[in-house]
Amino acid sequence: MTQPSAPPVGKTLWAIAEGYIPGDSTGSGRAFESHETACLLNAGDRDAHVRITLFFKDREPVGPYEVTVQARRTLHMRFNDLRTPAPVPRDTDYASVFVSDEPIVVQHTRLDSRQQALALLSTVAFGQ
Amino acid sequence: MTQPSAPPVGKTLWAIAEGYIPGDSTGSGRAFESHETACLLNAGDRDAHVRITLFFKDREPVGPYEVTVQARRTLHMRFNDLRTPAPVPRDTDYASVFVSDEPIVVQHTRLDSRQQALALLSTVAFGQ
Amino acid sequence: MTQPSAPPVGKTLWAIAEGYIPGDSTGSGRAFESHETACLLNAGDRDAHVRITLFFKDREPVGPYEVTVQARRTLHMRFNDLRTPAPVPRDTDYASVFVSDEPIVVQHTRLDSRQQALALLSTVAFGQ
Amino acid sequence: MTQPSAPPVGKTLWAIAEGYIPGDSTGSGRAFESHETACLLNAGDRDAHVRITLFFKDREPVGPYEVTVQARRTLHMRFNDLRTPAPVPRDTDYASVFVSDEPIVVQHTRLDSRQQALALLSTVAFGQ
Repeated sequence: MTQPSAPPVGKTLWAIAEGYIPGDSTGSGRAFESHETACLLNAGDRDAHVRITLFFKDREPVGPYEVTVQARRTLHMRFNDLRTPAPVPRDTDYASVFVSDEPIVVQHTRLDSRQQALALLSTVAFGQ
Repeated sequence: MTQPSAPPVGKTLWAIAEGYIPGDSTGSGRAFESHETACLLNAGDRDAHVRITLFFKDREPVGPYEVTVQARRTLHMRFNDLRTPAPVPRDTDYASVFVSDEPIVVQHTRLDSRQQALALLSTVAFGQ
Repeated sequence: MTQPSAPPVGKTLWAIAEGYIPGDSTGSGRAFESHETACLLNAGDRDAHVRITLFFKDREPVGPYEVTVQARRTLHMRFNDLRTPAPVPRDTDYASVFVSDEPIVVQHTRLDSRQQALALLSTVAFGQ
Repeated sequence: MTQPSAPPVGKTLWAIAEGYIPGDSTGSGRAFESHETACLLNAGDRDAHVRITLFFKDREPVGPYEVTVQARRTLHMRFNDLRTPAPVPRDTDYASVFVSDEPIVVQHTRLDSRQQALALLSTVAFGQ
């Protein structure tokens, strides 16, 4: 397999206005647990250091959460897994802003398994 | 928990061309009621005053609906909850335009529970 | 109810690369028939005349389909309903390009009722 | 049927940060097999040669996959069908970058049939 060079792609500031992790799940195993994901793509040749801030309805923002997306890698980060500085509350509206030191692409996805039938949503985040 | 400073993010004019609140729901409780939401994020340090106009297929626009998104907060606004100047009719096609005095980000989501299995859609609105 | 003035919003060229009308439905009535919709918003004060071209995998494009979105109105146009110059084939991949003489906003939605549980997708189209 | 001329539409660099082909399906036949699709639209008058690179969490990128979207055609390409230089692993996070020599539009869709009820997601890719 060849290792192709990729052009720089993306932006350094992204926002996801929708955020909500359902507290319930009906599936078994991690794949079917209700979750929200920010899919981060770093197609460049330098590691991207990303600082994430969470916004809420009625309290001050929390952050920064710090993640690194290595060069030429994608990181599908579950908000469910964030721990530092604080876990993300369930059944609570939130939003998120991503600031990266390298261009990245951010896409938002939710898998909702509160009912036995899965529901999915996805959208490219707002980048500027 | 620290209170990080966030860069200004977003635009002041947004549009959602899709709008439809299903008249029926099968779930119990507010979480599972069929609804359409505009998720508004104000990552800046000044309150954002937003004026919303609704457009219809065969009558003049209705508005403005006025909402405030406080500084450093997100507001997940259900169209179902709008009351003034008029509630949003169910089972009716509509669209919406948001004009804000501060930069915000707008994302559109529908939870449809007409059937027992949830269906979800979401997209970042059109910003300019 | 007041009749607010809205700023011009949108673009005059839009594209939807995804298109697929399922041939089957399980629901009863027009609301639950599997369908694809282009939601068109004309927030301006002049009627928008829109010419739509459909693209396929293995034949020449078909069009233009002509629709008018009146000033200050939204039109949620089902591809299922297009008749002239030709109906849209079911169970067939297609794409669409919209050219308008006034700025509009275009959002794409599919309701899929091939199974008893609804599935939904939506995204703002690509505008330029 | 007429053959309308279409204006050039799209961009030459696109990215999809989300990628995941479920390993399981419950439906019968190709239409209901869990799949991820990149819908490519070439509305122009010259064939578009597209080079696709796949990115992963913990290994080097794979590619280029080469596809041609003929002039005035759409290609709804299933990632499931990619074979050269290597098939796309199932149940694995990935992302993708598309580089085209002609303007195209890229939209991303997943049909998930792991449960008996379909789930759908779709978003226009990130173009620059």
